Amino acid sequence: MNFPSKLIEEAVEQFAKLPGIGRKTALRLALNLLQMDKEQVNRFGQAFIDLRNNIKYCSDCHNISDLDVCEICSNTSRDESMLCVVEDIRDVMAIENTHQFKGKYHVLGGIISPMDGIGPSDLNITSLEEKVHSGIVKEVIMALSTTMEGDTTNFYIFKKLKESNVKLSVIARGVSIGDELEYADEVTLGRSIVNRTPYENSIVQ
Amino acid sequence: MNFPSKLIEEAVEQFAKLPGIGRKTALRLALNLLQMDKEQVNRFGQAFIDLRNNIKYCSDCHNISDLDVCEICSNTSRDESMLCVVEDIRDVMAIENTHQFKGKYHVLGGIISPMDGIGPSDLNITSLEEKVHSGIVKEVIMALSTTMEGDTTNFYIFKKLKESNVKLSVIARGVSIGDELEYADEVTLGRSIVNRTPYENSIVQ
Repeated sequence: MNFPSKLIEEAVEQFAKLPGIGRKTALRLALNLLQMDKEQVNRFGQAFIDLRNNIKYCSDCHNISDLDVCEICSNTSRDESMLCVVEDIRDVMAIENTHQFKGKYHVLGGIISPMDGIGPSDLNITSLEEKVHSGIVKEVIMALSTTMEGDTTNFYIFKKLKESNVKLSVIARGVSIGDELEYADEVTLGRSIVNRTPYENSIVQ
Repeated sequence: MNFPSKLIEEAVEQFAKLPGIGRKTALRLALNLLQMDKEQVNRFGQAFIDLRNNIKYCSDCHNISDLDVCEICSNTSRDESMLCVVEDIRDVMAIENTHQFKGKYHVLGGIISPMDGIGPSDLNITSLEEKVHSGIVKEVIMALSTTMEGDTTNFYIFKKLKESNVKLSVIARGVSIGDELEYADEVTLGRSIVNRTPYENSIVQ
């Protein structure tokens, strides 16, 4: 693309750095900004600069937080013997929305992915081990994506923690609620038969 | 969504203002920014602020340009008797890529769309009339989208210009090159029969 203006070219380049946004979409977004008030666009650009420069992470669970210790970690009514290990803030928010978990979280900040150059040392695994060895935690629940990378990370962490006395579990994998069996993929359906649960447990309370 | 940080909430709100970006995608994009260097993100945010504050438009064709008069308008080898009317910079770039048009452009800056509150007075139509009445232009080619809004804008401009002596034309509408007839929609196929062209003209030169 030959742009008649360096300003628009730069804005397109920047939008196109985002995942899933190509140059055509980037141009559409940049033109959209030109329709907005100057003040709105100043606030738009500044929001990302402020985010990157001033972001803080909870010193306990490593989740994004405006406080030194996040609201979940500082909430004494939550069960600190249950620790749910997740990839990032999105998973914390998703699990919080279910209202089914009353323990605390540990945010890894990613999952092991050799393709993307992310190894164990890039993740918050050392602090997880320390937390587990401190003795307060009784159960570690791994809640990572059911992908190759998620499984690799599970395996790595299990190996690291198996010497400790904590119970290690993984969130249940099976047929989604509301799904028709004939449309479930074979791997999921096979696993759901192997990992069947007693009928009493299957009733949502 | 309940965010544990105002900074991330603000970034998500801002991304979600863009067309086609919902709050889930916005969160994914914001988390992506956190993986980048501070310098990169500063440049990212600043690009949009600079774009909106310093953008200039060609005083002749109203296209986005870093110069007072854009490169196309100031190019004396282009035919100024042919004027192609388009919606925005994307259409200028698309037509320039075809290398089939050697005239000049007139950028409306939008199309008439009552649903979006865009009327004729929001577009560069007065300056188009002045240009046509000045006598230099011999042909006005309307190259707008083949939508209801595009047709409405065509109709409005034709009514405004029909008193003048210029030739008024619309870019050809018909079956796309490479398309199979059985998959063409009825309206397009019907129009392509009504507006059939002599065989000699159909050969790409």
